[in-house]
Amino acid sequence: MLFDKMPTLPYELSAMDEKQTAELCADIRKRLIETVSVNGGHLASNLGVVELTVALYSVYDPHKDRIIWDVGHQSYIHKILTGRDAGMDHLRHPEGTAGFPKLSESDADAFNTGHSSTSISAAIGYARGYELSGEKRHVIAVIGDGALTGGMAYEALNDLAQSGSKVTVVLNDNGMSINKNVGGLAKYLGKIRKKHSYLRAKKRLRHFLEKIPGIGKPIARLLTKIKNRVKHWVVEGKFFENLGLYYLGPVDGHDVYAMKMIFERVNELDGPVLVHVQTHKGHGYEPAEKNPEAFHGVPGFDPETGEIFKSGGCSLSKCFSETLCDLAREDEKIIAVTAAMSIGTGLQNFADAYPGRLFDVGIAEPHAITMAAGLALAGRKPVAAIYSTFLQRAYDQILHDVALQKLPLVISVDRAGVCGPDGETHHGIYDFAYIGAIPFTTISAPSSAAQLDLMLRMAVKVYDEDSVIPENSRLFVIRYPAKERFTYSEDPRYIKSGLEYGKGAICFDNRPEGEKADVVIFSIGEVLEEAFAAAIIMADKGLKAVVFDAKFFKPLDEDAIVSLAAEAKVVAACEDAVKDGGFCEKVTLLLSDKGVGKKPVCFALPNELIPNDTIKNQLSSCGISGENIAKVCMGLL
Amino acid sequence: MLFDKMPTLPYELSAMDEKQTAELCADIRKRLIETVSVNGGHLASNLGVVELTVALYSVYDPHKDRIIWDVGHQSYIHKILTGRDAGMDHLRHPEGTAGFPKLSESDADAFNTGHSSTSISAAIGYARGYELSGEKRHVIAVIGDGALTGGMAYEALNDLAQSGSKVTVVLNDNGMSINKNVGGLAKYLGKIRKKHSYLRAKKRLRHFLEKIPGIGKPIARLLTKIKNRVKHWVVEGKFFENLGLYYLGPVDGHDVYAMKMIFERVNELDGPVLVHVQTHKGHGYEPAEKNPEAFHGVPGFDPETGEIFKSGGCSLSKCFSETLCDLAREDEKIIAVTAAMSIGTGLQNFADAYPGRLFDVGIAEPHAITMAAGLALAGRKPVAAIYSTFLQRAYDQILHDVALQKLPLVISVDRAGVCGPDGETHHGIYDFAYIGAIPFTTISAPSSAAQLDLMLRMAVKVYDEDSVIPENSRLFVIRYPAKERFTYSEDPRYIKSGLEYGKGAICFDNRPEGEKADVVIFSIGEVLEEAFAAAIIMADKGLKAVVFDAKFFKPLDEDAIVSLAAEAKVVAACEDAVKDGGFCEKVTLLLSDKGVGKKPVCFALPNELIPNDTIKNQLSSCGISGENIAKVCMGLL
Repeated sequence: MLFDKMPTLPYELSAMDEKQTAELCADIRKRLIETVSVNGGHLASNLGVVELTVALYSVYDPHKDRIIWDVGHQSYIHKILTGRDAGMDHLRHPEGTAGFPKLSESDADAFNTGHSSTSISAAIGYARGYELSGEKRHVIAVIGDGALTGGMAYEALNDLAQSGSKVTVVLNDNGMSINKNVGGLAKYLGKIRKKHSYLRAKKRLRHFLEKIPGIGKPIARLLTKIKNRVKHWVVEGKFFENLGLYYLGPVDGHDVYAMKMIFERVNELDGPVLVHVQTHKGHGYEPAEKNPEAFHGVPGFDPETGEIFKSGGCSLSKCFSETLCDLAREDEKIIAVTAAMSIGTGLQNFADAYPGRLFDVGIAEPHAITMAAGLALAGRKPVAAIYSTFLQRAYDQILHDVALQKLPLVISVDRAGVCGPDGETHHGIYDFAYIGAIPFTTISAPSSAAQLDLMLRMAVKVYDEDSVIPENSRLFVIRYPAKERFTYSEDPRYIKSGLEYGKGAICFDNRPEGEKADVVIFSIGEVLEEAFAAAIIMADKGLKAVVFDAKFFKPLDEDAIVSLAAEAKVVAACEDAVKDGGFCEKVTLLLSDKGVGKKPVCFALPNELIPNDTIKNQLSSCGISGENIAKVCMGLL
Repeated sequence: MLFDKMPTLPYELSAMDEKQTAELCADIRKRLIETVSVNGGHLASNLGVVELTVALYSVYDPHKDRIIWDVGHQSYIHKILTGRDAGMDHLRHPEGTAGFPKLSESDADAFNTGHSSTSISAAIGYARGYELSGEKRHVIAVIGDGALTGGMAYEALNDLAQSGSKVTVVLNDNGMSINKNVGGLAKYLGKIRKKHSYLRAKKRLRHFLEKIPGIGKPIARLLTKIKNRVKHWVVEGKFFENLGLYYLGPVDGHDVYAMKMIFERVNELDGPVLVHVQTHKGHGYEPAEKNPEAFHGVPGFDPETGEIFKSGGCSLSKCFSETLCDLAREDEKIIAVTAAMSIGTGLQNFADAYPGRLFDVGIAEPHAITMAAGLALAGRKPVAAIYSTFLQRAYDQILHDVALQKLPLVISVDRAGVCGPDGETHHGIYDFAYIGAIPFTTISAPSSAAQLDLMLRMAVKVYDEDSVIPENSRLFVIRYPAKERFTYSEDPRYIKSGLEYGKGAICFDNRPEGEKADVVIFSIGEVLEEAFAAAIIMADKGLKAVVFDAKFFKPLDEDAIVSLAAEAKVVAACEDAVKDGGFCEKVTLLLSDKGVGKKPVCFALPNELIPNDTIKNQLSSCGISGENIAKVCMGLL
């Protein structure tokens, strides 16, 4: 170790010599592996930007200059160097540092990121603001080539060129998003990579050192020489130059000295600059270098062997993928669409089984949805699988390009509900609200893998003329969390059900025949786990309880809900989505509309930030737990 | 006139000679001017693509091939040539043809458009579908250079390059969106324009004709010669080639023959092609050529003089702009942001008065919002003005980049409510729902210009530390329609009010002192017009009525609403937004939550398509009219 503990800026990184820098980078890498192996998190992307971060912070001051880390999962080194090394011990836990930049954590965090492709926009805003106020601060957006497939990044590049603002875009080109990067621009960057073995200042340094008689000669002279060379390092990048940016690069993203030279050169230029840095995801840790996709986000691993720990619970993404493969076997019209999430959504298996039938469009959810609409119009049966939080990007496309045309489309909304350790930016808790007000939709939420299987089999029928699904509701959305959380499926008290369009089912009922319920709980999706647990607690206390799994958010099973609510003494509703526009409100409105005269007690997520923690804790902190539901309901009896 | 009535495809346009084609184009132009002068609509963009449409439909069959008109406001010629010339007599009226492509109108309409930048995505979907099914159809996206500033178009270009699908992107480059086009790409296209006087086949034709002895020589030979030349017309377009597309052009978009040659050349190429067509917005009609911005969308005009008819009513955009200018005079930190709508939102006046303080980012709403967030973080006071329907594009940015960071931001949401003749795609009726579930927001809706002025003055206080606006609600949204519709503001029965944060006000009240109301109507925004009219009808019948202008959707003035509702015999609520997640539901939930035991009768928009008509008729068809509100309320007494 170079330091007893990690240095905190404004420690003079710039004063370190080559050996010290290398040692520091090795220490940082060790620290990353140590902390992520225990806490889980993003490893490969951080290993890839160790030298880049050190080079940046040798030239810029993150506490004053504004450095925006796009997506933000590669910000661990940034956090280590800006006073949060101790917090890394509990990375992504409530008592530790968050896994993404947070304004509230440090003045070095310039912008909260989480979703991709926002950094250049934020940087332009900052730069324009400082130009108007006259403040002198450097503004830098560090963005991956994956994030550059997102249209918003291009909107920003287009605006940046016209603004002429002094923003530096550091393109962290590793040829990947979470998976291998796709698209025309990726090919273009690949060509540059092939054509030019990128520049290694170290080699040049050695070359110079050999030539210079007497190693003791002033370093200054040496640096000047290198600097002059850097001026001619503009070897490619017409694409960006056509847009109106200076292009510098490509430069070796694991060569701190080369990058420092480039950044110093940037500071001499007037106007927007793109610095093309080539890195390797997982650099310096063999298991991650070999398998950067697996080490993108990990639940934890053995640092010695590189064995990734299995996380518990049945993966609903896997269930989705298996059912889709099964359906695709019998129907060649079934096509899958994803936005840079072929592994996360389980669709890589589909792609392997049915080559040419998965379209991965890059981090481009808006395009994914409208492209899928085109596929549907051409007679195919597309199933688009996108995480709930990222689907927010395609809100207008769902509404304008699918719903208003009354097109059939299946959207499989993965990672719905609270997300656990990734925190605020990754929750899939707004989907009921934002999709709920869109016309001509069906919205369902399975409580288990078995229900998801049935729902997907039903959903693809939207493409059939004689479908059970009403013609006006064929934008069929299925939203589900990453893991099956319902643990009672083998419990003898669990009443299994099939699936009927627009119908829910009672799944717990201890009413003696002819007797009325004390409490009825309406539940949708994964929180059935909590509703069921509550019912068991109450049943154990001798109360008569009913749990109703609504299955469909839209259309709501109105008859069943009204008749169950009418007879019960206490009515409750629960969901893992925000209250506004959610399931609990829908049930409340229904009962009000039908004059039932009962108001359900609602267990939904508040309009507040829900920070990183376990899913169980996040729900529980909002009152959504079996114990709390039972307690509140019993209190009302 | 070349024809008694406009020819309908498959009329053989390709067989027409140069003179006939010119005559047809002149006739179409005449027809466009005639029909838009009477019905209003989009003129300049259509005048610009007369020859382009004729050239396309000489080579392609719109009933079989899929031609997708981006944004769609330039689809009038397409409609004329595909059997809807008669419908143009009542363009944009319920009994006539719609102003945008509609699947439901014709099999020649390949995709409903309205919002910008969707066409390439839809085209790729079609092309992939046909490749899988083996159907042979050409797929063409016609997209303006303005629409190419939208990130989604770039997402699609990036995907197109990787897919290798045979999609032709026709870039209709007129240097404009609604206003002058902005950004790096616009500059790039401008350079191409300057460098190469684009190709005119007619000139070349003449040149050939002069050289060929005896005009009677076979045309075939002539065409071959031209064709060979076309092969070498690839003069620029590296930007698109870097992305992986063939680039052909630039070609004169008013030269049918040149374009036909190009399209035939396209059909020989394998893989995606971009054809760069240069057109003039407003071409062939002097007033529109001189002032293409004014003739982009017009309410009607005198075809002889080019005088545009004034539409009635006070423009709220103008009011917004005046107040903002007033505020900006005293506070240099105030900055305006818009997405290619500087004229529509009234901000051009601001730009003229305060140069350098309006940022027009192009048709790029996502970037606009996140860039504005950056401005706010840099200590400026940005006000982003975007139409409600287009702001849908920035849903995720409002949520992820502003709200979750608890940033202050003022978003001025213009064109809220039903939009009138533009129809389904342009309604601003989802904003309560999609913004309503976003945390840390204030959402207000003025009922008049006077209230808008007060709200904007209040909103910019979100940037002050000691603001009256709670720290957790500083994403301040003001949503309002194009025109002030409240006509009773000088009526002696109208009770004027100021503005207090989160408070509504009674604006009609004929209760004798100490007596209770028969009917209370809660209203928000422009529909105060209808609520007030209803109250007057009821008052005239001797009933005691109260109208409450809520002003704020969030936070709701709960105390006032509860206490008014509690005493009234009948409670009603009305709004110009969709029912789901809207104001009426909020009031219903509040009364249920507070145990008032009253359920308001709701006048909101249904989850259905509301086609083109006048705003008054659109509202009225959904039951939102003074007469209907009065009738329903009286029926309940």
